Amino acid sequence: MENFLEQLTREQLAEVERQFDIYCSGAKEIIPAWELKNKIAMSILKNKPLKVKLGLDPSAPDVHLGHTVVLNKLKQFQENGHTIQLIIGDFTGKIGDPTGKSTVRKQLTNEEVKNNAKTYFEQFGKVLDMEKVELHYNSKWLSRLNLEDIIHLASSITVARLLERNDFSERFRAGKPISLHEFFYPLMQGFDSVELESDVELGGTDQHFNVLMGRQLQEHFGKEKQIVILLPLLEGLDGVEKMSKSKNNYIGVDDSPSDMYGKTMSIPDELIVKYFELVTDLPLERKKQIKEELAQGKLHPRDAKMLLARTIVSSFYNAQQAESAEEAFKAVFQRGGLPDDIPVVKWQGEMEVPIVDLLTELKLQKSKTEARKMIQNGGVRINEVKVIDINLMVDIKQEPVIQVGKRKFVKLER
Amino acid sequence: MENFLEQLTREQLAEVERQFDIYCSGAKEIIPAWELKNKIAMSILKNKPLKVKLGLDPSAPDVHLGHTVVLNKLKQFQENGHTIQLIIGDFTGKIGDPTGKSTVRKQLTNEEVKNNAKTYFEQFGKVLDMEKVELHYNSKWLSRLNLEDIIHLASSITVARLLERNDFSERFRAGKPISLHEFFYPLMQGFDSVELESDVELGGTDQHFNVLMGRQLQEHFGKEKQIVILLPLLEGLDGVEKMSKSKNNYIGVDDSPSDMYGKTMSIPDELIVKYFELVTDLPLERKKQIKEELAQGKLHPRDAKMLLARTIVSSFYNAQQAESAEEAFKAVFQRGGLPDDIPVVKWQGEMEVPIVDLLTELKLQKSKTEARKMIQNGGVRINEVKVIDINLMVDIKQEPVIQVGKRKFVKLER
Repeated sequence: MENFLEQLTREQLAEVERQFDIYCSGAKEIIPAWELKNKIAMSILKNKPLKVKLGLDPSAPDVHLGHTVVLNKLKQFQENGHTIQLIIGDFTGKIGDPTGKSTVRKQLTNEEVKNNAKTYFEQFGKVLDMEKVELHYNSKWLSRLNLEDIIHLASSITVARLLERNDFSERFRAGKPISLHEFFYPLMQGFDSVELESDVELGGTDQHFNVLMGRQLQEHFGKEKQIVILLPLLEGLDGVEKMSKSKNNYIGVDDSPSDMYGKTMSIPDELIVKYFELVTDLPLERKKQIKEELAQGKLHPRDAKMLLARTIVSSFYNAQQAESAEEAFKAVFQRGGLPDDIPVVKWQGEMEVPIVDLLTELKLQKSKTEARKMIQNGGVRINEVKVIDINLMVDIKQEPVIQVGKRKFVKLER
Repeated sequence: MENFLEQLTREQLAEVERQFDIYCSGAKEIIPAWELKNKIAMSILKNKPLKVKLGLDPSAPDVHLGHTVVLNKLKQFQENGHTIQLIIGDFTGKIGDPTGKSTVRKQLTNEEVKNNAKTYFEQFGKVLDMEKVELHYNSKWLSRLNLEDIIHLASSITVARLLERNDFSERFRAGKPISLHEFFYPLMQGFDSVELESDVELGGTDQHFNVLMGRQLQEHFGKEKQIVILLPLLEGLDGVEKMSKSKNNYIGVDDSPSDMYGKTMSIPDELIVKYFELVTDLPLERKKQIKEELAQGKLHPRDAKMLLARTIVSSFYNAQQAESAEEAFKAVFQRGGLPDDIPVVKWQGEMEVPIVDLLTELKLQKSKTEARKMIQNGGVRINEVKVIDINLMVDIKQEPVIQVGKRKFVKLER
C-alpha cells in the first residue's frame, strides 16, 4: 500500500491522529495499526470515505448490549463520514447445517432472513444513522460462485492454517469430527470483504480468525487488504460468560426501561468500568474520571451502577424514562416495597404445591435442580419472607406473591 | 442393498460365481466382495448390465502397459455384457493447479483435452471394443455445481478422514502445506460416481482412497454404493518404480513391435510372472503352468521372457509382427550382430569429442553424471567394443556406431 501519511499537511496529520485515537479507544487489537492510520490518510487525501464492514448472523437477530460495543465503534466511523457496510450472512442462513446436526444453524426461509434483517435494521437504528448505512445480503455473490471459483478460493489457504482456528484445533486434537464444509464459513466471510472491497472490518475477539481471513483473501485476489479491529467481548449479567441470548445473561436493546435499568444494577461491581467503557458513549475524559473515583473509593459502586443504568436507559430511550426507571427501582429495592406491576397468574392446579414444583411450573426456574439451588442460596421469597425449607408446601389459597432473585415476581390468584 | 443372490436359480448362481472368479483374478482388493457377487446377481436377474467406471487423467494420455492392467479388467466386464464408463477428468484438467505451483497439473485448453481424450480412445481401442464404451467428460456436471451444492458435498466428509489419505497425512505430519482445494479432487472423483450411478469402479492400489470416496458420496446422496476393485500397480522396466511416462520406464502401447519386444526382454526376471498375470490375456491355466515351470526351473527365464514379449506384441499388433520382432531381437542380441535399422546422425560438431559429451548431445543419456555411470557399468560400446575409459575421445571421422544399453544405437556420419 502506498504511503499516504507522508503526503499530508500538518493539519491533516493531526486529523488522522484524532480519528485514530477514537478508533483505538476500547479496541482490543488493531491489525495492523500503521495501515489504519494510512487508510485514514488516504480517505482524507482522496476525499473518499472508508468502507467499514460488519458481518451479521441472520439466525439470531435479538440485539443486546453486547452488540452495542461494536455498534458504538461503527458510530464513531460514521460520525467521521465513513461508510458502514452491514452484511447479512443470509447465504449461510439459507443453507443451515447440511449435516443436520446443529440446531443452532438451522435452515432459514427467505422470509425469516428478511424479517431478521429488518429487526437488526430497526434495533441498530437506536445507535446508527441507518439512512447512511449500506445493507448487503451475501447470497448475492456467494450463490453465484461455481466449483471453479471455489477451487480458486480454496487454493489460497492451507488446511493447517484452518486447523489453527481455536475451535477447530481443539476439536481436531480431541478427535472430534470437523466436517469439511465447516472450513467454508471463514472463507465465505472473507470473500464478502473481497466482493465489497472493505477497508476495515470489525469483530469481537472471538472473530479473530474469520476477520483476518478477509485480509488474506483480499490479497489473494489482488485487492487492498482490510484493517481488522477486534473489540473485547462484553461479559453478561453473570459476569462470567459472553453476553448472549442463549445464555440468558443479556440486556436487550428492546428491553423495557425498567428491565434495562434493573438488569444493569445486577451486574457484578468488577464490570462497572468495562460497561462504562464499552457500552456508553460518555466522553473519554468522563469515563476516566469515573474509573479513578471508583478506584479511590470516592464513588460508591452502587452509585456508579445507578449512573451507568441511567446512561444506558437514556441512550436507548430518553433521560425522563431513565429517571422514571430509577425511581421505580428505588421504590422496590431500596425502600424494600413490592413493585406496582407484578404479573398475576391464575393458578389452575392443586391448592397445595411443593415450592420447587411451583417455581418450575411458573417458569421462574428452568429446572427443579436450579430451583432447589436458588432456595438454598436464599433467593426465593414468599410475601417478602425468605424461603428456608426446600420442601415447603405453598398454600395457593392465600394468593401469595412469589419472588425469585431481585427482579422476578409473580402473584398467584386462585 | 437387497439380497439378489438368494433369488437366483442354481444355473444363475453358477454364472455369478464364474464371473466373480474372473473379476477377482489378479485383483488386489475387492471392497466388498459379497456386494460384487450381489451386484452380478442383480444384473442377471434384472437383465441389466453393470456400469463399470474408470476415471482418466486428461493431462497424460500416453497409454502404456501399466494401463493395460486395468484395461484387461474392463475387457473382462465388457466380454460379459457390462457397460464401461470412461470418465475424462477434463474439469480438473481445465482448472489446473490454481496455486500455479505444480507443473504436472498445468491448465489444459479445451482442444488439448479433446486431443488427449482422442488419444486415450484410440489406444484403448487396442484392448476394448470402443463402440460399446460410454465416454463422459466430468466438466458436464462439475461445472454446474454451485457453492450450495459443494457445501452439501463437503458436509459428507470430515477433515480427519481426508487427512488419512497417505500423501496428505505424510505432508501434514511433515508440516508441508496442503492447500484446501486439494481436498476437492477426491470429492470430485467421488461425485462422478454419484452422477453416473456407477456399480463398480476400478483403480490402481494408489487410488484406494479416491475410489472409496465414490462409495461414501453415493451413500450420502442416497444411491447404491459402488464396488471398488483395486488392481496391483505394474512395476516398470526398472523393476522398482510404478510404470509411468515420467519415470521413462514404460512400454507404450504405441511403441513399435521391436521396441515393445526389446523393452519386454529388459524387465528383471522377478517380474516375468507378474507381467504374464497382469498384462497378457492368456488363459488362467496357461499362466499357472508358466509360473510353475519357471519355479521348477523347467522353463528358462530368457525363454519365458521371449514368450511374454511375443504375447504382448501379438496382442497389440499381430503374431507375424511379433515373430519379426523376435527375429530382429535375436539377430542383435543373441547372435551379437548389429540391428539393420540403426538411426543415422549427421554430426555437425568437432571431430574429436569426449565420450561423455557425445552421449548427452546425442541424447543417449540425460546427463553427464548418468553417462559416466553407464560407462562405468559397462553399458556403452563403440563399434561393438565396450568403452572402459570415461575420458575417451571419440574419433567421429571413423563414423562409429555408438551403443548404449542393449537397445539404443546411433550411427554417426560426418
